[in-house]
Amino acid sequence: MSVTESKSELFTVCGVDVVESGAKAREAPRSESSVFEHYIQPCLAEMLGTALFVFVGCVSVVGNAGLSGCLQPALAHGLALGVLIMVFGEISGGHLNPAVTLCVALCGGMKLALLAPYVLAQLLGSMVGAALAKAVSPSANFSSAAGGAFDVVQTSGAVGAATVAEMLMTLVLTLVVCMGAVNAKTKTQLAPLCIGLVVTANILASAFVSGGCMNPARAFGPAVAAKHWEHHWVYWVGPICGALLTVSMVRLFFGDQKTRVIWK
Amino acid sequence: MSVTESKSELFTVCGVDVVESGAKAREAPRSESSVFEHYIQPCLAEMLGTALFVFVGCVSVVGNAGLSGCLQPALAHGLALGVLIMVFGEISGGHLNPAVTLCVALCGGMKLALLAPYVLAQLLGSMVGAALAKAVSPSANFSSAAGGAFDVVQTSGAVGAATVAEMLMTLVLTLVVCMGAVNAKTKTQLAPLCIGLVVTANILASAFVSGGCMNPARAFGPAVAAKHWEHHWVYWVGPICGALLTVSMVRLFFGDQKTRVIWK
Amino acid sequence: MSVTESKSELFTVCGVDVVESGAKAREAPRSESSVFEHYIQPCLAEMLGTALFVFVGCVSVVGNAGLSGCLQPALAHGLALGVLIMVFGEISGGHLNPAVTLCVALCGGMKLALLAPYVLAQLLGSMVGAALAKAVSPSANFSSAAGGAFDVVQTSGAVGAATVAEMLMTLVLTLVVCMGAVNAKTKTQLAPLCIGLVVTANILASAFVSGGCMNPARAFGPAVAAKHWEHHWVYWVGPICGALLTVSMVRLFFGDQKTRVIWK
Amino acid sequence: MSVTESKSELFTVCGVDVVESGAKAREAPRSESSVFEHYIQPCLAEMLGTALFVFVGCVSVVGNAGLSGCLQPALAHGLALGVLIMVFGEISGGHLNPAVTLCVALCGGMKLALLAPYVLAQLLGSMVGAALAKAVSPSANFSSAAGGAFDVVQTSGAVGAATVAEMLMTLVLTLVVCMGAVNAKTKTQLAPLCIGLVVTANILASAFVSGGCMNPARAFGPAVAAKHWEHHWVYWVGPICGALLTVSMVRLFFGDQKTRVIWK
Repeated sequence: MSVTESKSELFTVCGVDVVESGAKAREAPRSESSVFEHYIQPCLAEMLGTALFVFVGCVSVVGNAGLSGCLQPALAHGLALGVLIMVFGEISGGHLNPAVTLCVALCGGMKLALLAPYVLAQLLGSMVGAALAKAVSPSANFSSAAGGAFDVVQTSGAVGAATVAEMLMTLVLTLVVCMGAVNAKTKTQLAPLCIGLVVTANILASAFVSGGCMNPARAFGPAVAAKHWEHHWVYWVGPICGALLTVSMVRLFFGDQKTRVIWK
Repeated sequence: MSVTESKSELFTVCGVDVVESGAKAREAPRSESSVFEHYIQPCLAEMLGTALFVFVGCVSVVGNAGLSGCLQPALAHGLALGVLIMVFGEISGGHLNPAVTLCVALCGGMKLALLAPYVLAQLLGSMVGAALAKAVSPSANFSSAAGGAFDVVQTSGAVGAATVAEMLMTLVLTLVVCMGAVNAKTKTQLAPLCIGLVVTANILASAFVSGGCMNPARAFGPAVAAKHWEHHWVYWVGPICGALLTVSMVRLFFGDQKTRVIWK
Repeated sequence: MSVTESKSELFTVCGVDVVESGAKAREAPRSESSVFEHYIQPCLAEMLGTALFVFVGCVSVVGNAGLSGCLQPALAHGLALGVLIMVFGEISGGHLNPAVTLCVALCGGMKLALLAPYVLAQLLGSMVGAALAKAVSPSANFSSAAGGAFDVVQTSGAVGAATVAEMLMTLVLTLVVCMGAVNAKTKTQLAPLCIGLVVTANILASAFVSGGCMNPARAFGPAVAAKHWEHHWVYWVGPICGALLTVSMVRLFFGDQKTRVIWK
Repeated sequence: MSVTESKSELFTVCGVDVVESGAKAREAPRSESSVFEHYIQPCLAEMLGTALFVFVGCVSVVGNAGLSGCLQPALAHGLALGVLIMVFGEISGGHLNPAVTLCVALCGGMKLALLAPYVLAQLLGSMVGAALAKAVSPSANFSSAAGGAFDVVQTSGAVGAATVAEMLMTLVLTLVVCMGAVNAKTKTQLAPLCIGLVVTANILASAFVSGGCMNPARAFGPAVAAKHWEHHWVYWVGPICGALLTVSMVRLFFGDQKTRVIWK
């Protein structure tokens, strides 16, 4: 067993390698592993991971009703996400977020064929997580918190600011994902933790503007469970635009020589 | 001394290796080490670790009386647990929780013979920790906080939701333990910290539903010290069901080829 | 590929190496890389990083209006900064702060020719970030929080204390940067996270005295956006004095043999 | 340069090695290094580190006046301490605490000759830090918070509980230091961070009982600056007893074969 190999088992990365076929150090185990580990297990991981993330997130929002500020949900979302990415990273990359999946796919960090299955698994997981959150929450609290769905935007005048905020916050998040877990030059083992912590920071900042979603899957399941669809599109358009902005920046300026399309 | 060996001393893992005999890199020191290091020291570590965890946890709950929210106890529990796992991980695995011990045992991460001694050590430690917490707390505060025992469930109508919440929160916790510290493919040196942080996230989320226990030992000692046994079974049934759910998922879907029982 | 090389790609450091030409392990990739990666990319990274840091920071201050304490902005600033340093560290060093750039340059951690471009990029980024924060914030909240500019110092009697506090807090921050990311003997992969966490600690401590800025760029952009220039010089003089104090201490006492100018 | 050597420069440990002469991997640089690096630099590092820790800690306590709970000072103390240990660990071990120095010395982690100089440097640093905190704090706030000195114990009836709490909290802290940074079998690169985080957890738990000091130097300087000496002995007796308890436990039960005095 080579040094490199033992290291990559000791430190889990955000794990997009697992769906790429080129990584030299892991080729041997891969040749023995079945189609299960390349296609089915990653999708199951995205589904379970998203379900658990959405469950913890929604319950924390319901439990925060009546408290001032958003420290409790901000920490609950960020820490749960960081830890789930840490444990599922080696299996599926631990995206748990369609905007992240889109961004990683367009930056060359995963097989394009897995894009749609991942997003479906995330949306399905999100519905499961939101349903579980509904099951354990007292119904009065659940309703008053809109079940963890995003109800920050109350007037149509606030829609624009919320969409721009979601776009910029998702730009920060996906930049951390692409630079910390995909781009070879800046990759780091601490990427999962970093991704969780930046989600905490972004929620603390943007909770009063847009709720700090940055994740269409986090928005979708609770919207289904609470039947709250007002301004729901904001949480698809904002994050997707943010992801595309990150792709442009990484492909044009911040990627390494392999990732950049110009300035080579 | 080989590179691998020096690495495994530099980074403490959640440390279940220590009770397995197969780990190649540590075989040499093991052959010299006595029965003390394999059986007595791990049980003492589980006892002391659980005592200190329960002590810090209960005092933090008593000290939180009158404050809104549960940030202080959530951080105190999670950080103390993560750090104690970090320092005791190489000795006993740093479970400090019967549900974790059950889950690790059934996923193949420890000798089955140590299951009962570990649980006994944890329960004994928990009583010591809760007694120490009682000794340092002003008695009025101690009573009003039920001495850190779990008194969130007040009506029989809330019992079901609390049990399900404990099950799901323990599922998240034990999944992090099994994937981050037992399953070879997804193992990480940061597992101890991750386990602590996910406990913080789960307490922040579920404090108002079930108290966020996830640990029969954390419930048992304070219940003895405060003579608070109402709905105590919830904190055994919920966590044990969560641990068994994790075992099923890891053995069927998310374990690596060695751990999975199907899809090989 | 040598072990050292693979390690330095696995763990991103605070990344000042990238602008030094001597690092043996990376010489090969460097000879292929263009002037883009040595001069333009680092400045772009400083600009984008500072813009995103200032954006998250200012929005968190605006969102904290009406809450007691400064936990939300302290965590938002520290976590966002730590994570951005982690992802941009390998490209530009991830300074995002003129006081840090000055200190790193004088401690021998970067090419002096990049000092002015870095500071310009940081100030430009700061204006972009503050403008984006203004764009997404409700204008009433934005005004009442002075748009995240520093308005803690209200009387001229408090100016002295604020300047000294900024100096000392920046001393702590830049000491962490120089010892954790420049000085070879004490360098650590965790430097980016440490830098973020010490910023959180310092804001928690000094928010009521000076606001906890430690960064002329963090002060400049929001001052432009909110047209708030009162006592603005405090946030240049304090941090620069702190940085120079760090340089003296590291060069005289705490640097390793290569860095120290005396006691060799 | 060997792999081991490069690793130990990449990851700073809590750094007690630096004052021991046996560590193989660093012998070469040591033979060139002067008496400065072995005796003077470590004492200066203890002095400066303690000064900065006490400064940040006291200012955070003064700034917390009027807020409920102790999250702000708990995080400020823990994060500042963890980061300072990270950067000074390779130079002096980063104790910043006489109880820690005593415990490390008795567990075999440093030269006994440095015990007294370290403690003197810490007490001197503490006075400097407290004086700086006094200089930047508005005098009304400074007085009402007793300048960050410990004034939790108000009645003689509470003295016993406070002393026991200090003893047990220091037991947890010094156990983390000895197991995480001295004991070879359980050593970890994350020890500095762990030590900081356990201080945060312990302050969150014990703030209302004893203030969560665990450190005679943290108590001494502010007592001088605020002339607050009531029950001051509690913060010497408690931590020292805790440190001695840790020494007994590590030497009897939890140390590795080299550290344990029995059960070999």
